[in-house]
Amino acid sequence: MIGIERVDHICVAVKDLDGAAAIWGPFFGKSKPDLEYIHEAEAIHVFRYKVGEIYYELMASTRKGSEVDRFISSKGEGIMLISFKVPNVETAMKVLRDQGYRLIDETPRTWRQSHYAFVHPGFMNGVLVEIID
Amino acid sequence: MIGIERVDHICVAVKDLDGAAAIWGPFFGKSKPDLEYIHEAEAIHVFRYKVGEIYYELMASTRKGSEVDRFISSKGEGIMLISFKVPNVETAMKVLRDQGYRLIDETPRTWRQSHYAFVHPGFMNGVLVEIID
Repeated sequence: MIGIERVDHICVAVKDLDGAAAIWGPFFGKSKPDLEYIHEAEAIHVFRYKVGEIYYELMASTRKGSEVDRFISSKGEGIMLISFKVPNVETAMKVLRDQGYRLIDETPRTWRQSHYAFVHPGFMNGVLVEIID
Repeated sequence: MIGIERVDHICVAVKDLDGAAAIWGPFFGKSKPDLEYIHEAEAIHVFRYKVGEIYYELMASTRKGSEVDRFISSKGEGIMLISFKVPNVETAMKVLRDQGYRLIDETPRTWRQSHYAFVHPGFMNGVLVEIID
């Protein structure tokens, strides 16, 4: 069982975080993000908004040539990633691999208390899918 | 108050619905979509999966030159739209307009029991935003 429980978060690649927050903050009725963080390994600076049961994240690049930079260069700003909650990433990866899904990662990535991994967008109708536990 | 409550649905533009369902169905652990429908006015044929509190929709064009067709031609398959639940679309549209948001629609669109309207992606960091009640 892959065990997809729900959408965990959706990431929007943006050029200018403050500019984006001036649009999305009032849209969600929030004067500031619920959380702000920098994830150096992924070269992202994130403003996170809780919207219902999911996190809606505005994500800017912290390094020239990062994944976010390259996404924006090729496709423009927009939704870059959707992340699904699973009970256990390692188990889910094994099931996905056994069923023939093409994963980007060999082993789970780790950040704080979470593990996560990416499925190849070329296998998922152009959607960059993350699974996270 | 715009009154965004939660994400209602996310739409993925795909070329081949059955091919996409063969990927996403097993991913969600579902042997078939929870709902299938055709919305002629929008020229879409949809397979809908309930994932947590949201609907994840695979959406194929039913007419050459439709919005979905044009999206796929310019950007390739991928997430085309995110829809947010509001208590009342007409009220939300008025508030958005008063706050300077650029809407695609002058008046709400109607389908079955719902009203919905689109905010311009050029105003929302490239994200095609729908509000629905």
